[in-house]
Amino acid sequence: MTIDTDLDRTPAVSDDPVEARRTQARAWFEGLRDRICAEIETLEREAPAALFPGEPATFSYKPWQRKTGAGGGVGGFLSGGRLFEKIGIHTSSANGTLTPEMAKNLPGDGVTRDYVSTSISLIMHPRSPRVPTVHMNTRFLSTSQGWFGGGADLTPMLPEQRSQDAEDAVMFHAAMKAACDAHDPAYYAKFKPWADTYFFLPHRGTARGVGGIFYDHLNSGDFERDFAFTRDVGAALLEIYPRIVRKRMVEPWTEQERAQQLACRGLYVEFNLLYDKGTMFGLQTGGNTETIMSSMPPLVSWS
Amino acid sequence: MTIDTDLDRTPAVSDDPVEARRTQARAWFEGLRDRICAEIETLEREAPAALFPGEPATFSYKPWQRKTGAGGGVGGFLSGGRLFEKIGIHTSSANGTLTPEMAKNLPGDGVTRDYVSTSISLIMHPRSPRVPTVHMNTRFLSTSQGWFGGGADLTPMLPEQRSQDAEDAVMFHAAMKAACDAHDPAYYAKFKPWADTYFFLPHRGTARGVGGIFYDHLNSGDFERDFAFTRDVGAALLEIYPRIVRKRMVEPWTEQERAQQLACRGLYVEFNLLYDKGTMFGLQTGGNTETIMSSMPPLVSWS
Repeated sequence: MTIDTDLDRTPAVSDDPVEARRTQARAWFEGLRDRICAEIETLEREAPAALFPGEPATFSYKPWQRKTGAGGGVGGFLSGGRLFEKIGIHTSSANGTLTPEMAKNLPGDGVTRDYVSTSISLIMHPRSPRVPTVHMNTRFLSTSQGWFGGGADLTPMLPEQRSQDAEDAVMFHAAMKAACDAHDPAYYAKFKPWADTYFFLPHRGTARGVGGIFYDHLNSGDFERDFAFTRDVGAALLEIYPRIVRKRMVEPWTEQERAQQLACRGLYVEFNLLYDKGTMFGLQTGGNTETIMSSMPPLVSWS
Repeated sequence: MTIDTDLDRTPAVSDDPVEARRTQARAWFEGLRDRICAEIETLEREAPAALFPGEPATFSYKPWQRKTGAGGGVGGFLSGGRLFEKIGIHTSSANGTLTPEMAKNLPGDGVTRDYVSTSISLIMHPRSPRVPTVHMNTRFLSTSQGWFGGGADLTPMLPEQRSQDAEDAVMFHAAMKAACDAHDPAYYAKFKPWADTYFFLPHRGTARGVGGIFYDHLNSGDFERDFAFTRDVGAALLEIYPRIVRKRMVEPWTEQERAQQLACRGLYVEFNLLYDKGTMFGLQTGGNTETIMSSMPPLVSWS
């Protein structure tokens, strides 16, 4: 797959250290996307036919370019699959200009409005209410300073799965803790509560799911170190989520559980549109509406 | 129905002119709610059985009180009806305190943070994709100044209904124009484009529906005059919407039209959570989440 954006005119190795770092991060994000998509397509084929009739789905990819500023990305879409009702997995990279207000609120000197960014983001909506939804987003962003940010969190749909000591939650948290611990013993104690705080809906008085980790403005002064951690978050997701899916995809479900899933998906919609920083950033900086909104669940109910 | 809120301890006639005005407006909003609910329950019974099987639904009412400040309201809910899949119709009244930032952004001296408010709001989601969704919200709000605001707009769900010269749009606009013209020949020319601007989703580059009217900070210096106009907006809605519903509820629909409706409802969700001032105001001032979120459609799809 060739990514047809303005950024491809940027030489692969740049004398500008920020560009060189962005190129490195971008290559990782795009490679991770390819590995995740391949694994999902395997799961689509593996899912038991008795529960998931029909043909396995594959991803389609749609390159797009920013209308303002240079850059763009590739939207990866899967819809109407056997196991997965809808998935959006996107990589994007940009050179852009922040509004003065955004520049003030982001790390850096508060004056520099030019930024470069590169990111991966994904949301997967399984068809079975017994298979949890997952989200991951990691990014490198640089104004007069560069930093990593992102996170990964799990959203099980059934009441009995939505506690910290439910089996899937325990597995997911353990995987994220291992990724953290390999880099800094203090990370998990900081990034796990950060996710609990971030993925919370004050107006509902409830969390979106069971959490995971969340971090932002990660700049230890050592790019390689921060980049290695961000790589391991992606690798942990690629390992743990398919493991949870394989365990749950053999379980039949009831109509009532399907109804609970459709209602629970509403929390996802409300979070993304009311609170999510990535959605805001994307919509405010001329991101691609189709990819941003592809995080929305395929079917949702509000009773 | 008795409304069980702190406000009921307020004497019906107050020496405070602001309280007296609020009491007047509140009585009108609550009476309008009762008339609209009665008309909807009539429509529920009238809808043709061949297209709308099952029992006619009636409203249930749920009083609530504000957790912060005095006041509360009554949520009117109808769900799983024959003709109407879901309706939320709410009256609410409060004495509260604005955040300093809100006080600065609202009419008044910019310093007074105490406010009183009273309002009606409704959103109706019909089951048939051929029957348009409708929204109305009007309110009286007073800081160191008092004013009316609100609007009514129509959201037809099928592509051929979503133009300014479609039959339902023409009928709806004519009714709103008549309400405006009875009070000020300049109103419609101002309030119609205001709705077109307000009910627009920049990230989608499209309007939520076919519009209607929208106004805010209406303070001509003559409370009676502004109140009379706000009453006529409500009366116009009560006249025109059932007329459109009766015309459309005899039309059968296809699976494809139902799918178009579910997708079109996504615009409603995106608008309410990303842009709607009423939703923001409610969530920021300790409003009732259940009533605020009852505007959400019963079933929505994002492909």
